[in-house]
Amino acid sequence: MPKTELLYEGKAKKIWKTEDENLLISEFKDSLTAFNGEKKSSEEGKGALNNQISTELFKYLDEKGIPTHYVDTIDENNMLHKAAEVIKIEVIVRNIATGSLSKNLGIQDKTVLPFTLVEFDYKNDALGDPKLNDQHCLILNLVNDVSELDYIRFMARRINTLLVDFYAGLDIKVVDFKIEFGRDKDGNIILIDELSPDNFRLWDAKTDEKLDKDRFRQGLGGLTEAYRQVLDRIKNR
Amino acid sequence: MPKTELLYEGKAKKIWKTEDENLLISEFKDSLTAFNGEKKSSEEGKGALNNQISTELFKYLDEKGIPTHYVDTIDENNMLHKAAEVIKIEVIVRNIATGSLSKNLGIQDKTVLPFTLVEFDYKNDALGDPKLNDQHCLILNLVNDVSELDYIRFMARRINTLLVDFYAGLDIKVVDFKIEFGRDKDGNIILIDELSPDNFRLWDAKTDEKLDKDRFRQGLGGLTEAYRQVLDRIKNR
Ligand SMILES: Nc1ncnc2c1ncn2[C@@H]1O[C@H](COP(=O)(O)OP(=O)(O)O)[C@@H](O)[C@H]1O
Ligand SMILES: Nc1ncnc2c1ncn2[C@@H]1O[C@H](COP(=O)(O)OP(=O)(O)O)[C@@H](O)[C@H]1O
Ligand SMILES: [Mg+2]
Ligand SMILES: [Mg+2]
Repeated sequence: MPKTELLYEGKAKKIWKTEDENLLISEFKDSLTAFNGEKKSSEEGKGALNNQISTELFKYLDEKGIPTHYVDTIDENNMLHKAAEVIKIEVIVRNIATGSLSKNLGIQDKTVLPFTLVEFDYKNDALGDPKLNDQHCLILNLVNDVSELDYIRFMARRINTLLVDFYAGLDIKVVDFKIEFGRDKDGNIILIDELSPDNFRLWDAKTDEKLDKDRFRQGLGGLTEAYRQVLDRIKNR
Repeated sequence: MPKTELLYEGKAKKIWKTEDENLLISEFKDSLTAFNGEKKSSEEGKGALNNQISTELFKYLDEKGIPTHYVDTIDENNMLHKAAEVIKIEVIVRNIATGSLSKNLGIQDKTVLPFTLVEFDYKNDALGDPKLNDQHCLILNLVNDVSELDYIRFMARRINTLLVDFYAGLDIKVVDFKIEFGRDKDGNIILIDELSPDNFRLWDAKTDEKLDKDRFRQGLGGLTEAYRQVLDRIKNR
């Protein structure tokens, strides 16, 4: 399935059209950004690691009955997936308070939350991804009605339960993550985008060592080594 | 009912204890703050105007069956009201997009919203009053369960309907406002605090002239004149 035309170049991926209008190719890039694009860098091999980690997680979720855009992995950096109409909501799922949640709401870093928190941020770089309540989502026409938000919240919690379980088997804690949903050609809401340590906070269960993009955000170094850790543990499970 | 002890001095009022532990006195001050306390000033007579406007609105809502903390108006600057345990949520009600909503979500200034928007901000000056979703309210223990949030949303919409109607009779548009709720001694959730142009955006229905604290925020001058307009229109209805 060859690439035909570049549809969109984002911060972490190039999205290519194919000869099938219902299929796209995500080309995972090595570039890294943080703080809404203010901090930028590139790490050789990062894109390939994210593609492979995402592949494993999409396959796992697919087996567990979660509807996703995943179709096939073409090569190191390229994934074939369904074309979707992106729902412009960044769905944030949090098990442990850290980062912006701790800072913004004054919740002690590393507090285990009393229940899994699902937040909606407006996927809009120009506006800095502001937080939304359900009514904002309707006013901005991001969804058709509240039941779609309830469905997304439900799926986000299901996905969290499955991924917490998956990563627990690898001695990794899923602290929080960002996922995206879209509508496929039939109008079904499906999980899209990527499932990589760029968008997941993953801590080693024993040492709390960060195995995710916080290594870049916080200038800790060893980013690709950490992502490789994650991939190796997945492969050796 | 004399004041006994200063319970709390806020940005716009002093709250005094009385001999009755279930009653407090709000003393409305002339001081003005905006942008989370960054801009400060004082306008002679502002406190008295807010006390009188609040008095009229509390009496009106009371007549319409809304449970409020209002008991009596003692003199120009002092209101007697029930003591409440403050629910630390700033309940924002919006009919027309302007101010921070327009800026944060990129909604054109003065857009009439498709429905009345109710937002919850964390009443926490140190954190800059961040926006909350329902789950945040639970995690922060601001309420006991979601039904309390539903009740608050319901009451906020009822109050909006009543006040839009009230002000329409005075040729004034209710653009948006901030209200607070608390629990009285019996645990009922009641409307507390104040109902003044410090916390309401009020526009002249014919000219869109601002009759509220935006005159101060935007350095337009004529603040007490505008508040007096509002009070005069209320008195002459
Ligand atoms: N199945 C899909 N169909 C269409 N667009 C998608 C799909 N999956 C992800 N996308 C979008 O493609 C872009 C992925 O590129 P990325 O570099 O992550 O972009 P961004 O900088 O917006 O995060 C995102 O905007 C994402 O919403
Ligand atoms: N009935 C009440 N019982 C107890 N506290 C109240 C009541 N009504 C209002 N308050 C609180 O008293 C304070 C009013 O003073 P204000 O100057 O408006 O304070 P702030 O600077 O916190 O806005 C607010 O914190 C408000 O929540
Ligand atoms: Mg992305
Ligand atoms: Mg106040």
